[in-house]
Amino acid sequence: MEGVSLTRGVNIHSVTNKSDGEEDSAHQWTAPTNERLPFTGKNLWKPWQHARARIKASLYRLWGVLGTLGGFDWYCFGALGILTALMSFLIDLNVAKLLEAHRWLYEQLQGHLLLQFLCWSLYPTVLCTLSTAFTHSISPNSAGSGLPEVRTIISGLEFPEFLSLSNLFAKLVGLTCTLAAGSVIFLGKVGPFIHLSTMVGAFLDRLCVSFHGKREFRAQNKMLIASAAVAIASCFGAPVSGVLFSVEVMSVHFTVHDYCRCFLSAASGALTFRLLPVWSREQETVQALFKTSFSTDLPYCPPEILVFALLGLLCGVWTCVFLHFHRWSLLFIRTNQVISKILATEKAVYSAMVAFLLALVTFPHGLGRFMASTLSMKQLLASFLHSQQWKPVLQNVSVPLPPGAPESMWLEWSPAGTSVLFTLVVFLGMKLWMLVLAMTLPLPLGFFMPIFLYGAAIGRLVGEGLAWMFPNGIESGEIVRPINPGGYALAGAAAFSGAMTHTLSPALLVLELTGQSTHAAPTLLAVLLANAVARSSHRPSLYDNVSLMKKLPHLPSLLRTQPELSFVQLWQVWYSGEEAHDGRGGAAEMVLERDSGATEVRRTLSSSSEAEFPVVESYESGVLLGSVHRSELEKFLYSQTDGPSGLELDILGQCLGNVCSIQPVTVHLSTQTTVQQAHSVMSVLNIQLGFVTDNGKLSGVITWTELKKMIERLAKGEIKQNNG
Amino acid sequence: MEGVSLTRGVNIHSVTNKSDGEEDSAHQWTAPTNERLPFTGKNLWKPWQHARARIKASLYRLWGVLGTLGGFDWYCFGALGILTALMSFLIDLNVAKLLEAHRWLYEQLQGHLLLQFLCWSLYPTVLCTLSTAFTHSISPNSAGSGLPEVRTIISGLEFPEFLSLSNLFAKLVGLTCTLAAGSVIFLGKVGPFIHLSTMVGAFLDRLCVSFHGKREFRAQNKMLIASAAVAIASCFGAPVSGVLFSVEVMSVHFTVHDYCRCFLSAASGALTFRLLPVWSREQETVQALFKTSFSTDLPYCPPEILVFALLGLLCGVWTCVFLHFHRWSLLFIRTNQVISKILATEKAVYSAMVAFLLALVTFPHGLGRFMASTLSMKQLLASFLHSQQWKPVLQNVSVPLPPGAPESMWLEWSPAGTSVLFTLVVFLGMKLWMLVLAMTLPLPLGFFMPIFLYGAAIGRLVGEGLAWMFPNGIESGEIVRPINPGGYALAGAAAFSGAMTHTLSPALLVLELTGQSTHAAPTLLAVLLANAVARSSHRPSLYDNVSLMKKLPHLPSLLRTQPELSFVQLWQVWYSGEEAHDGRGGAAEMVLERDSGATEVRRTLSSSSEAEFPVVESYESGVLLGSVHRSELEKFLYSQTDGPSGLELDILGQCLGNVCSIQPVTVHLSTQTTVQQAHSVMSVLNIQLGFVTDNGKLSGVITWTELKKMIERLAKGEIKQNNG
Repeated sequence: MEGVSLTRGVNIHSVTNKSDGEEDSAHQWTAPTNERLPFTGKNLWKPWQHARARIKASLYRLWGVLGTLGGFDWYCFGALGILTALMSFLIDLNVAKLLEAHRWLYEQLQGHLLLQFLCWSLYPTVLCTLSTAFTHSISPNSAGSGLPEVRTIISGLEFPEFLSLSNLFAKLVGLTCTLAAGSVIFLGKVGPFIHLSTMVGAFLDRLCVSFHGKREFRAQNKMLIASAAVAIASCFGAPVSGVLFSVEVMSVHFTVHDYCRCFLSAASGALTFRLLPVWSREQETVQALFKTSFSTDLPYCPPEILVFALLGLLCGVWTCVFLHFHRWSLLFIRTNQVISKILATEKAVYSAMVAFLLALVTFPHGLGRFMASTLSMKQLLASFLHSQQWKPVLQNVSVPLPPGAPESMWLEWSPAGTSVLFTLVVFLGMKLWMLVLAMTLPLPLGFFMPIFLYGAAIGRLVGEGLAWMFPNGIESGEIVRPINPGGYALAGAAAFSGAMTHTLSPALLVLELTGQSTHAAPTLLAVLLANAVARSSHRPSLYDNVSLMKKLPHLPSLLRTQPELSFVQLWQVWYSGEEAHDGRGGAAEMVLERDSGATEVRRTLSSSSEAEFPVVESYESGVLLGSVHRSELEKFLYSQTDGPSGLELDILGQCLGNVCSIQPVTVHLSTQTTVQQAHSVMSVLNIQLGFVTDNGKLSGVITWTELKKMIERLAKGEIKQNNG
Repeated sequence: MEGVSLTRGVNIHSVTNKSDGEEDSAHQWTAPTNERLPFTGKNLWKPWQHARARIKASLYRLWGVLGTLGGFDWYCFGALGILTALMSFLIDLNVAKLLEAHRWLYEQLQGHLLLQFLCWSLYPTVLCTLSTAFTHSISPNSAGSGLPEVRTIISGLEFPEFLSLSNLFAKLVGLTCTLAAGSVIFLGKVGPFIHLSTMVGAFLDRLCVSFHGKREFRAQNKMLIASAAVAIASCFGAPVSGVLFSVEVMSVHFTVHDYCRCFLSAASGALTFRLLPVWSREQETVQALFKTSFSTDLPYCPPEILVFALLGLLCGVWTCVFLHFHRWSLLFIRTNQVISKILATEKAVYSAMVAFLLALVTFPHGLGRFMASTLSMKQLLASFLHSQQWKPVLQNVSVPLPPGAPESMWLEWSPAGTSVLFTLVVFLGMKLWMLVLAMTLPLPLGFFMPIFLYGAAIGRLVGEGLAWMFPNGIESGEIVRPINPGGYALAGAAAFSGAMTHTLSPALLVLELTGQSTHAAPTLLAVLLANAVARSSHRPSLYDNVSLMKKLPHLPSLLRTQPELSFVQLWQVWYSGEEAHDGRGGAAEMVLERDSGATEVRRTLSSSSEAEFPVVESYESGVLLGSVHRSELEKFLYSQTDGPSGLELDILGQCLGNVCSIQPVTVHLSTQTTVQQAHSVMSVLNIQLGFVTDNGKLSGVITWTELKKMIERLAKGEIKQNNG
């Protein structure tokens, strides 16, 4: 058993061991109970000694009981959910107040067309300008969705600047302004909110580390994946689809063990988010966010499933058009000299211009009346999802409707008696370019919710069209059932947003969001078909588009569009660079030999910040012996210098190999390993260094920093050019 | 680019490449359109040539269009869903008829107590005996749940005897008999059905292979994971939770790319399963399986969430008791000489005895009347999930109820005016040992449904107890809301079955099963807490219990109960065996050297059935050069013998190194690699051989067969004993 105990040190943090974390933390929790009460002479002068001692004892006992259920990190995961939900609720509350103010002012100015236009256009313009100016003055990284960056961080690469406190603050304020601009700008919350919750997760992770003292390597990632799940859960109160969405978008290989923690966070987030409105007396009880009331007895006739399938295909095709247009716009903005100049120097001016243009188009007394532009985004969704057909209700309207009735929303869709189908087509056509334009704004913005709404509009159009073709409903057996266009809107929303993001979880999201499970099966069918079309011929998703355009080092999105990159091997990356290599690829300065003295170790330690260093037999032979941990090297240095002064180097003359314990290397890569394989192995085995050997000789070391550089070079197309 | 193209051959099947399958299959699909019409002279005598040609052309075109959407394997995944759903529907249909026959006979004998008793007890006894005898005479592997075995197969190890056609047939018939024994035996369908659908999946996979010609290594696993998902989807019509359940139970590392195919299969399965009753005129339209009608406006008051949390904890604790008892019973059966003798020789007798005992206890005129034993399992679940409290309804019953009304089911729970709480407690207490006893039966049986029902009973007990304590309901704001015990039954069912199987997906399953999304959040909370209790202190799940007792080589369940095994390294396994090793561990007879001649190659090929072989510089130096594919070796042999006769060996005198292309090895393991790491690397990178090197010298090869043996030895505790 000696061999085992010798190497156990390295295994504990390199193995993806399932129960490690739990064991450690359980140990940490129960420790205080062994010490019991620090009831010594020192405390004698304090009052109520016995009472305090008893309280302390019971607190320790509670601590112990809680510790048996789960480690401290489990409670951190729970706290993550609650904090994120609180943040989401506060944002929603502020945004609702700001939107209400805009609506109130606009209604007060009824009759003064010019003043109304100024109110309509200047309010969102000012908010967008403010959002842009604020985020860029505090932290430029906080602009944009943030989701592609978070995805890259979760894939293992580090971007500390994206998880800073100033970023959190800037994003929070910027996002509130963006959302307060409402349906004029037509942007959402999900992407930036995932970024926000990731920052909260990173902070909680640091808390965990300071509690545990030491830290499992790359444990942060677990917290970050959970953060992404929590963000969706607290935006929509949908825990399960939150976890699924984060798995689908964020990770390539998913360890099932992490899944449980994700669920804990997501459930606590969703529960808090649902309970907060009840506690703040806004709502009577816990309900779905967009409660619908479809008939559960006869939700749809079996032949309608075919229409759902066609809707899925339509959404898939429309996704391809949309994404093509989106790619083109990103490219245009980058290449057009005027716009790129404005965006480089005067971001706020660009935002103001775009926001004003969008407000001009949506002005309710102008074109906006054919797009139901007075409805807020929530009202738009509610009107799309309503189960009754719009048309027959509108014909019966003769008495003025009470404000807030669903019929008053439907009236917006039929201004001056125009056909509902016409306004829906105008809405879809106009929103296409407006949405793509809005997505180029340099401020915190989410893509998901506008896409979701757009999909719901597509579905509604199909549903209303079908209801127009079969005004008496469809026969099913002996019963004639009227068409429910709301069901199509539901399926359309899921299919379009699923196809745009290459995910299937929206099928579940609509179920959790509306509390409507009758349409689960046809919705899933539509989502699957839309995804099949959208993913065919290596088309990138919306997030991939952004990743590729920003040249982020995100390997999965690179491979999706250029599958041939999965064959690029390590030697190709190493020897294609312009810098001269000394025969060894990657981080050659980190390598130590067995006979290294204190001077050499000191130089190596100062040149690299990694936690592990490879040790070879000698630089000439290059035979890899294993790796040494940084702490071992520091101990070695300390023993050599006989004190913290750092003087008297090499006096004792001992070499590294005699003092430090060299840990054997468990997995070797070779120069023929592909970059993708190296990434998979390093992330699955959770290792810090990848040792590349050639016939047992070390020919290079891959660190995560090195890997990041490699993928960045792949993204820039440098490797391909050199070899193609 | 030469280097790339040289090594591309090995990469295509060794890399976990995302688009590989699609590309290949797309290529296969479009091929026929290039050939166009085989309209040659041979066919001239056939009639309607032009019509047939046109039909053929349009078929080819359709083929091409379908091919652009997805490869042939995607259609196989769809077919898997449809076939499994059809099988599930047919089983259900037959079982319903058999149950109906039993009920009819029992009711016809009203008044004749002895005859009624004989009918009650002999019917299930005969069915169980038949099931046991049939399965054991055709294929003994088809007994039991099958889920632990399927899980082991999916982890990468091969058990061809579990996926044979005779097994499929035996399991199908045996399962139908078991289910027809009904609520007397109280066993379910899920586990065996997962096994059944895996067999269907394996067949479809072979179809795929014969279509493609070649086959990606271990592509079968994708089909098998999808099969597990499809099984749940077609048992309950719940596609999303089916996929989640299969991910949670079946896999450790999950590739997100596989997930999409799982969803396709599960969705087609669930849709078919839901549509079949409509087409067979049993149902008007597509509905949830156990439709409930909870109030959606005020589903529960916020304080009730605390009760849900307590229910979760209770279910967790009860799970620990249940599993302890289950482990004890399995151990008792194994160690008790009398029972083990009967089980070894006369399995049918044992089944008959147990079935008769269970029937005796559940006889409705005896003890059974306190357990509502006349209700079928579906009726039991429906009665548990009903939203109204049982008690008040029972007091109002004075007129005879129409048969089939829900109230007639509730009457069963209060025989001769006894309290509902009392019967529920009796039900829970008696079913505990009866269920554990039934689980020892040597016939195809499922654990999930009985556990689910048991959990629903626990929840109902809590709900009825709460309703008894607050007969007027709970105040929430100004509104007084009556307690809904059905909601607690829902949460209890999810929490108990989740805790028993260590999964969270039952939280979603109850949602899909009942179409009731109001209680999603508290149910998820209960499931999380129950899981936290059930997983603490390395407790195994129900399936782990079976795996461990059967000594199946399933690594995750081994590591769950004995986390110290994750530190066992390869050398420990190799050098602890009783067989003498020649310095090289594992499959040493597979190694070839560069100078190997035809004789040697022929010997190696005949001694091993692997597809890849390692090549070393020479046996003395042991430096690993790479690997050679079997087909290359066969080509080499063919070239050496100048014909298929196999004569004239070594005449040309060429060696392997000059003729075959040696593929470089991308990942090396070392003797210090743990078994767990080796398993992770091999399954994530999807490689057939793991090369274990020591300073560049080959010290062993790990095949999947070898890995299976290793894990089997770990399971038997051989390694631990030798080193501890």
